[in-house]
Amino acid sequence: MYIDHPASFTDYYELTMAQGYYLAGMHNQRASFDYFFRKVPFDGGYVIFCGLKELIETIKHFRFSEEEIEYLIKEGFSDEFIDFLKKFEFRGDIWSVKEGEIVFPNQPIVRVEGNLLETQLIETLLLNILNFQSLIATKAARIKFAAGEDSIVLDFGLRRAQGLAGIHATRAAMIGGFNGTSNVYSAQRFSIPAGGTMAHSWIQSFDDELTAFRTYCDYYPKSAHLLVDTYDTLGSGVPNAIIIARELREKGYELKGIRLDSGDLAYFSKQARKMLDDAGFHSVKIAASNQLDERVIASLRSQNAPIDIFGVGTRLVTGDETPALDGVYKLGSVNQVPTLKISENIEKITLPGIKKIFRYMNEDGTFYGDAILLNEETILERMHHPTFPAKKSYLNNMKYEEILEKVIRKGEQTFDMPEVDKILEYKKKRFANMHPEYKRFDNPHIYKVGISSRLLETRDNLLTSLKP
Amino acid sequence: MYIDHPASFTDYYELTMAQGYYLAGMHNQRASFDYFFRKVPFDGGYVIFCGLKELIETIKHFRFSEEEIEYLIKEGFSDEFIDFLKKFEFRGDIWSVKEGEIVFPNQPIVRVEGNLLETQLIETLLLNILNFQSLIATKAARIKFAAGEDSIVLDFGLRRAQGLAGIHATRAAMIGGFNGTSNVYSAQRFSIPAGGTMAHSWIQSFDDELTAFRTYCDYYPKSAHLLVDTYDTLGSGVPNAIIIARELREKGYELKGIRLDSGDLAYFSKQARKMLDDAGFHSVKIAASNQLDERVIASLRSQNAPIDIFGVGTRLVTGDETPALDGVYKLGSVNQVPTLKISENIEKITLPGIKKIFRYMNEDGTFYGDAILLNEETILERMHHPTFPAKKSYLNNMKYEEILEKVIRKGEQTFDMPEVDKILEYKKKRFANMHPEYKRFDNPHIYKVGISSRLLETRDNLLTSLKP
Repeated sequence: MYIDHPASFTDYYELTMAQGYYLAGMHNQRASFDYFFRKVPFDGGYVIFCGLKELIETIKHFRFSEEEIEYLIKEGFSDEFIDFLKKFEFRGDIWSVKEGEIVFPNQPIVRVEGNLLETQLIETLLLNILNFQSLIATKAARIKFAAGEDSIVLDFGLRRAQGLAGIHATRAAMIGGFNGTSNVYSAQRFSIPAGGTMAHSWIQSFDDELTAFRTYCDYYPKSAHLLVDTYDTLGSGVPNAIIIARELREKGYELKGIRLDSGDLAYFSKQARKMLDDAGFHSVKIAASNQLDERVIASLRSQNAPIDIFGVGTRLVTGDETPALDGVYKLGSVNQVPTLKISENIEKITLPGIKKIFRYMNEDGTFYGDAILLNEETILERMHHPTFPAKKSYLNNMKYEEILEKVIRKGEQTFDMPEVDKILEYKKKRFANMHPEYKRFDNPHIYKVGISSRLLETRDNLLTSLKP
Repeated sequence: MYIDHPASFTDYYELTMAQGYYLAGMHNQRASFDYFFRKVPFDGGYVIFCGLKELIETIKHFRFSEEEIEYLIKEGFSDEFIDFLKKFEFRGDIWSVKEGEIVFPNQPIVRVEGNLLETQLIETLLLNILNFQSLIATKAARIKFAAGEDSIVLDFGLRRAQGLAGIHATRAAMIGGFNGTSNVYSAQRFSIPAGGTMAHSWIQSFDDELTAFRTYCDYYPKSAHLLVDTYDTLGSGVPNAIIIARELREKGYELKGIRLDSGDLAYFSKQARKMLDDAGFHSVKIAASNQLDERVIASLRSQNAPIDIFGVGTRLVTGDETPALDGVYKLGSVNQVPTLKISENIEKITLPGIKKIFRYMNEDGTFYGDAILLNEETILERMHHPTFPAKKSYLNNMKYEEILEKVIRKGEQTFDMPEVDKILEYKKKRFANMHPEYKRFDNPHIYKVGISSRLLETRDNLLTSLKP
């Protein structure tokens, strides 16, 4: 389970509003909320959606425990409402895109329908889960893209993760395309390959580096990655690794790899490769770590640094320059009546109504663009730019798919949650259908997301008619 | 408890190294590890240490559960080592500065002594806990400093927190100086005041804003903060709030406050204050939120924006521009013999030996500077700049205090862990003893942290004598 007490993993105002709806007798009104984000993190071109598994599991177990009830009584919530909470379960419906799906700003990628009270109560929980995991899956996809599909990228981030965030950062990294982790806890729970060999402290615990290497290989002759930068990478680390590689070969083993963790990784990897090759150890892999991210890796790639394995920590698991996805959860309709938030910032104006998403495809199967439309619409001839509606795209006869699917019906899960490896397969397939212009790091092409004429009309009518 | 299975909340290599030490018969060698960071986050002048409570609690409960043992067997760890792990407990000693202490780069602010195996095994756990919580306590202290000691600053970050990181971000924010939170889960567990009133969805659920306000105040006449920016802050939000304030006054209540969540907060707060004052509602507080941080708040302050309460979310709980503290855990000695890591980056060279910290005070009780010295040293006449030793500071006759204290002895907690409010009191006292030059946001004065002559000598002798 994501959290032991999901009902209290929330902002206090969800509870004051819930009580207000209940006492005002409004709680059974039918509501529809949308989850969407406004800005692609990392100045990138796409987001990889992630976190659905934890969301579904938590919502299925969303109950108020005795501990929480006691707290709410002390906080002065009314007896009537407390009695209601004791029996509370989420019985609404949830539509979502698949985990691993490629998504874009302002799309309602998760839609929650149910009564006003239950749909409101899960807001914080939903945002907390989806915002973070989608952020890290996206960062991971960027790093994997920089390293190349054939590379090995490993998550080394647990020590620098934001506390317990490390648990789900690892899962999200795998869905984004990582190949393994150092994080034992998450490896166990999400069936992820884990590994690791030695830190500098191992080397320092011995009188000399050679003995440290040799002792390690006595116990791990098949899997050792010798850390070569404790004292002098090219002066002692790599030469000592070569001595050990020779000793191992005499015993019938091949040294698995070496790891560089400081200095100029392009220079050191080239020198180390040459030394290893000259000594006849072509199969010894070179792993590198130390503040890596997609840009450093792209730079190493462009310099032809012969690095086989990238260990990425802090900048993967925290999101680095963009440590949060700005996802929000906004009310789209109450009792089938579309509703709108205007706000003082134009970019914060919401899309009213109950909506769905059609993804249109080019002839070759690549993504052309997405349309947001009202749920009752069936076919679109064109879509409009959401803030500059005169700009239109024509969709006649293009193939499309609806990308939201029902995942919870009346509180019950309605589909089989795939394992991490299957989700990654889906992400790979979808990622391959996206033109490279959307994937580049600098000024990526902006993916078309339009709205239907009827949705546009609904919004504009509401904007002019609303009399606050 | 911080995590249900602390022994597996670790990097895989801690386990391969531990097995290596065990099989090589080295595990009972006495080791000393230091926790320190290299760079102050946010380009700031100080860090507020935080996370000790979770560290101590987790280490006391550090055991390998059946589930973990099973996993390690599958991973191929040896029977002999597995038998050892089944009975494993941490029986070492830990010294630490107090939670809420002001600390600086390269100081060994936590020291772990014990056998090589147990001190190694807790590395990832320790780093994960201390790095994140110290980061957020520091960010919170900066935000509180910008808002002013008399301000109210509230944590609204749970929805944008990095997943479960939200739990401890809230506690850390309180230790850094925050006044309350929206996070119900953490409020319950850490005895923190929680609160909250309404979101935009509350307003949108009603036919009009006035009815939304009125209905809320029917149920919460004493605590309502009316959210005024859903449609038109000055055109409808504030005027409607004033209507409600009048209605409440007739019933014997005073409206508590209004909240601005978009637009230019300086302009809107001034206009709203004037409208409220002109209507005779001087006591109605103005709360503001929307991507606040210490710089935005300082700017609002400098514009005399009449904001009483700042709600801070994303940029507090994620650390924003610096989402990780770069704390590390390095081996200082084995069997009383000092040890060193050189690395290819000068700033990564470690300080050898078993060390402590003296904090020197000016005549007026303010902090002068800190010295790192070997544990067996008792008095210092001078200290040296750690990388430019010719630069010295003389310490004759200055008052000092030793800031590390023993918190765990042979695996048992040796002191009473204070509650959050007491820790905050300590932080306030210490913060007051730091000159304002260290607290400013741009080019803060660099606090003096020196090393003793003997420590300098030990390091330099090791540097020249080490033959890798």
